[in-house]
Amino acid sequence: MLSQQSLNTFTEPPVEMARERNQTSFNPRLLTYFLDGGEKNTLLMDRLMQEYERDPVFRNEGDYDITDVAQSRELAFKRIAKLIEYVHTDDEETYLYRCMLLGQIDMGAFARYAIHHGVWGGAIRGAGTPEQYEFWVKKGSLSVKKFYGSFSMTELGHGSNLVGLETTATLDKNADEFVINTPNVAATKWWIGGAADTATHTAVFARLIVDGEDHGVKTFVVQLRDVETHNLMPGIAIGDCGKKMGRQGTDNGWIQFTHVRIPRQNMLMRYCHVDSDGNVTEPMMAQMAYGALLAGRVGMAMDSYFTSRKFLTIALRYATIRRAFAAGGGQETKLIDYPYHQRRLLPLMAQTYAIKCTADKVRDQFVKVTDMLLNLDVSDQEAVPKAIAEAKELFSVSAGVKATTTWACAHTIDQCRQACGGHGYSAYNGFGRAYSDWVIQCTWEGDNNILCLSAGRALVQSNRAVRAGKPIGGPTAYLAAPAGSPKLAGRNLYDPKVMIGAWETVSRALINRTTDEFEVLAKKGLSTAQAYEELSQQRFLCTRIHTRLYMVKNFYERIAEEGTEFTKEPLTRLANLYAFWSVEEEAGIFLREGYITPQELKYISAEIRKQLLEVRKDVIGYTDAFNVPDFFLNSAIGRADGDVYKNYFKVVNTQNPPQDPRPPYYESVIRPFLFRKDEDEEICSLEDE
Amino acid sequence: MLSQQSLNTFTEPPVEMARERNQTSFNPRLLTYFLDGGEKNTLLMDRLMQEYERDPVFRNEGDYDITDVAQSRELAFKRIAKLIEYVHTDDEETYLYRCMLLGQIDMGAFARYAIHHGVWGGAIRGAGTPEQYEFWVKKGSLSVKKFYGSFSMTELGHGSNLVGLETTATLDKNADEFVINTPNVAATKWWIGGAADTATHTAVFARLIVDGEDHGVKTFVVQLRDVETHNLMPGIAIGDCGKKMGRQGTDNGWIQFTHVRIPRQNMLMRYCHVDSDGNVTEPMMAQMAYGALLAGRVGMAMDSYFTSRKFLTIALRYATIRRAFAAGGGQETKLIDYPYHQRRLLPLMAQTYAIKCTADKVRDQFVKVTDMLLNLDVSDQEAVPKAIAEAKELFSVSAGVKATTTWACAHTIDQCRQACGGHGYSAYNGFGRAYSDWVIQCTWEGDNNILCLSAGRALVQSNRAVRAGKPIGGPTAYLAAPAGSPKLAGRNLYDPKVMIGAWETVSRALINRTTDEFEVLAKKGLSTAQAYEELSQQRFLCTRIHTRLYMVKNFYERIAEEGTEFTKEPLTRLANLYAFWSVEEEAGIFLREGYITPQELKYISAEIRKQLLEVRKDVIGYTDAFNVPDFFLNSAIGRADGDVYKNYFKVVNTQNPPQDPRPPYYESVIRPFLFRKDEDEEICSLEDE
Repeated sequence: MLSQQSLNTFTEPPVEMARERNQTSFNPRLLTYFLDGGEKNTLLMDRLMQEYERDPVFRNEGDYDITDVAQSRELAFKRIAKLIEYVHTDDEETYLYRCMLLGQIDMGAFARYAIHHGVWGGAIRGAGTPEQYEFWVKKGSLSVKKFYGSFSMTELGHGSNLVGLETTATLDKNADEFVINTPNVAATKWWIGGAADTATHTAVFARLIVDGEDHGVKTFVVQLRDVETHNLMPGIAIGDCGKKMGRQGTDNGWIQFTHVRIPRQNMLMRYCHVDSDGNVTEPMMAQMAYGALLAGRVGMAMDSYFTSRKFLTIALRYATIRRAFAAGGGQETKLIDYPYHQRRLLPLMAQTYAIKCTADKVRDQFVKVTDMLLNLDVSDQEAVPKAIAEAKELFSVSAGVKATTTWACAHTIDQCRQACGGHGYSAYNGFGRAYSDWVIQCTWEGDNNILCLSAGRALVQSNRAVRAGKPIGGPTAYLAAPAGSPKLAGRNLYDPKVMIGAWETVSRALINRTTDEFEVLAKKGLSTAQAYEELSQQRFLCTRIHTRLYMVKNFYERIAEEGTEFTKEPLTRLANLYAFWSVEEEAGIFLREGYITPQELKYISAEIRKQLLEVRKDVIGYTDAFNVPDFFLNSAIGRADGDVYKNYFKVVNTQNPPQDPRPPYYESVIRPFLFRKDEDEEICSLEDE
Repeated sequence: MLSQQSLNTFTEPPVEMARERNQTSFNPRLLTYFLDGGEKNTLLMDRLMQEYERDPVFRNEGDYDITDVAQSRELAFKRIAKLIEYVHTDDEETYLYRCMLLGQIDMGAFARYAIHHGVWGGAIRGAGTPEQYEFWVKKGSLSVKKFYGSFSMTELGHGSNLVGLETTATLDKNADEFVINTPNVAATKWWIGGAADTATHTAVFARLIVDGEDHGVKTFVVQLRDVETHNLMPGIAIGDCGKKMGRQGTDNGWIQFTHVRIPRQNMLMRYCHVDSDGNVTEPMMAQMAYGALLAGRVGMAMDSYFTSRKFLTIALRYATIRRAFAAGGGQETKLIDYPYHQRRLLPLMAQTYAIKCTADKVRDQFVKVTDMLLNLDVSDQEAVPKAIAEAKELFSVSAGVKATTTWACAHTIDQCRQACGGHGYSAYNGFGRAYSDWVIQCTWEGDNNILCLSAGRALVQSNRAVRAGKPIGGPTAYLAAPAGSPKLAGRNLYDPKVMIGAWETVSRALINRTTDEFEVLAKKGLSTAQAYEELSQQRFLCTRIHTRLYMVKNFYERIAEEGTEFTKEPLTRLANLYAFWSVEEEAGIFLREGYITPQELKYISAEIRKQLLEVRKDVIGYTDAFNVPDFFLNSAIGRADGDVYKNYFKVVNTQNPPQDPRPPYYESVIRPFLFRKDEDEEICSLEDE
């Protein structure tokens, strides 16, 4: 080890990083097992990450300098092709993990494949009959042979409001065909991932028209391109949506259908059946046809974990070696030792652990509901309502969780970037690209604001059910539980029961208040829709608080279930930090509901400060536990060894090798300007008369 | 006018936009005069905007598809060159406006020129003697002939903490020269705008070393490149910082100095003088040497206005023609008619008006202080302390305002993007690029977090001065004023005195509380630095609330001073909305300080709702008043005529003309993959023994 004296700003960081790592009070590997859901999963992830790292197609050091859209798309497709090679050799779970990891290297490639595999695949599996699913699998859907699927939902003029879509699918009984048509330019299918370059087929959301009657939006499979030549099929017009804010690897396009004919059998008929005579049968499950979107939401909570952990690892490692100012005179202080820097980043780290616990919970629920739906006999009068209830609950929980976690992740990327100062703005540290790639998660597959409003409506509905004496279960069960103490009243914050109780009480109070207001409005004669509209701000708030409660609870419960003698303490520290900080963040609500006093709020802030100091000691352990290899970080300042300046200097100079001091446009632009002649100041003289 | 029946999703928008515009209750032009500070300024802006729009160098419809860094830089330089042609023909104010408008077209080009004109220029003017300033102007600094300046402040290992910079400037008395040197790699000058491609000279922040004694950081002019050949000067090493998150038009580079010799006269000596014998004279004004940074901060508040108004115009116009869902059944509702959508965007619009009032206020103060400093006799024992006090106050006010407004603008761009749903993610609507270009404003020239902490410290210091019976003035004068009512207690919210009083009371309470805590810590024996460190969260909060108060106050006062019979009403509506909404945003503090009760908070929220409904009616008028021509918006969905879908469809298709359905990598990548052979499943047989 180098002696302290020989260290300077440039050489000190790796030495300090090793020292910080050595002082960790726990074994980070055990926290990794906790986060991953067991050692087995960690080992699987390790293996898959190594496979990616060694594969030349995934070499990513040059990724930040790829700016050309076509080049991004080509690289993304190569990566997708490589991934698909494993579809038949991996077991299902391994393949799922492999897909998720692709998102950690190239979000554009991941989205492009997820649209085929998850969304198109989910549509034919979820909305198609088993026979229809088999048919498209045989056509090459799963193995991606002579076939690439896409999903044509949104239109230029309609996004979130699916029931307003304008594309039509009119049954022609004589031909036993549907005619798919785009009635006006605003009905052009827009943002269709895969359409611009790749897709041979697409699942189209269109209005089912039979005998002049509009049966609402159903799903139809339409072939876009000739499989052999990749030429467009008759009646299909496709254009390129072009440059986006991020995810250039996904080839989004627009599609117009001009009287395109498809066999009647191309309508996906699990939940709605049309026979050759034009009889339309819709069992009560029709609303489940949108189920294809659920997988995406659930996956985005998981993605929020993966992406948040990455940028927290970078910013916290950097904070641990970067020094600035001298808080007490003498040697400059590490950023991480500033109380304010701790407060900016460490709660976000705790939140990231909380996100994982919640993402796992929602995924388990999703797997359960999906299995139930796939195995459901749609004529079973008893099973169907139960399935609908469970699916609805999942819709509502996943809506709040998707919105909360994707926003949290966007905020985390942004905060971490700012915490790295100017170096956060370098492309080579990864923040810029990640933010631009990430934020569409807050909009697609359910705009976050709309999801929160809709989840808020569901919370009020559940509460009205409680008031009507109906049983409710799942994450809203506390609404029916006997109310606990309406005040914190000096109870022990460090008792998870107290903390969870606090959140339940405040969330319940808020939902009760909103339900009361709803009932007043209803009595005034407003329609249900109008009353909910009036209460949008309140609904939004209900979702925000309820979801935060859900996350606090899941974190504590997961520790109770899976924590060990080695991990319980460091994890509980984080859970407490997360729960206390969340109260501080929502102090306005806690004060308003009279749950805490200003004095107690001050006490909570002081306890947060104590937790921060404790957590700070192990900050390298906690971030190492995220288990993100340098290759996946792909960030010059985030390296595990802490040799930040050396690595960053090297990366910048490798990507920008020494060049002529005269840039390419020197002779043509710079020199002529710097050496321009003085303006001609002679003017024609006129004799004034 | 088209009949209602012939309108569909595609054709309705322009008709609706015209209808909305017609219903405006005021003359938007009069609000423009208010915002611009008078008709004269508006006419000047109109003229300059037209000149930009007509000049081919500024044609911007292709800007979003430029991805190549070198191409961005070349275009940026062409634009700068064009701007500079006006430097001698424009009067100073016109040129300033012209510069600001460049930032509305190309933030990268603007930054690159601002570094030369504002920062380098500001350094030689502010830190150089009048003779030194004249010398560099004669060399071509102002006209940019055979000369391009830059500013070498930050190093790889040091940013915000200027006193920790490691580059040295050692006086060699024998040669009457300074030797500029980079002692280790972490001391490499980093992020130097203009260094990579353009700069011939630079102002270097380096430690003045005379006879082995370190006199701290001063400014030295160093030549980087030979003027004739653009080759690097001896001892100068320059590299390219490469790709950034945004602002690719600025050519940031790194610089290492290896024993580079400069004449002693190249030290900028207004505030610190070194003679040929090595005598160092530092009048009390030494701290003013950082004054060059002030102009940047003040300009960024103005920039925040320019940029916020642009994206609010886009998002609010879009919200006025976009329909989704049917709140009351029947025709779909416009986004702007959803209470939640109003709440998301309209307060940000009001805030943007408030930002302008505050930016003007701070700029006036800046002009005053700058003039005072430039005309100051540094030996005047009476004038100097007064000047220092005024400059300090400006430092602190501008710190809070810079942080608050640049964050507000980043948030506004982001919220506006999300409010446009998926179309917000298209490059052609401008949000992505603007966000990436913008956010560095929150970091450079004083990291926002550090600025807030430092402004918070100044607030506590002012308050301690008040307690010590010293007079204070300016924006903190209310700290010394007699306390008003400690509670809202049912007074009239619509009386600006009440609203301003509310903010003053809460801000004063917060600063008092923090000052109390400071004194407790000091009594416990903590050093001043340690005590402030402990109180960082509180300091941050003090700045946040004090700055918000300042903005609320400036808005009301400007209306009182400059509002007319035609504009007072619509402006007051916005000011009320901004003030009330700000209380709601900071409800936690207002409740904690006991200024309002939960019941009053509910009332305030209800009043916000009322204001929103009023403001909504005139939303097109309020955004038209921002007076941003379509050319400057450069956003397919933001057009004034509201013909959103047609325009957007056209722009996307112009930028991405119809192409072969087979993308360039079809034959090489896609086809071989889709048509790959099944894996060879035959395996060599081994006879098991």
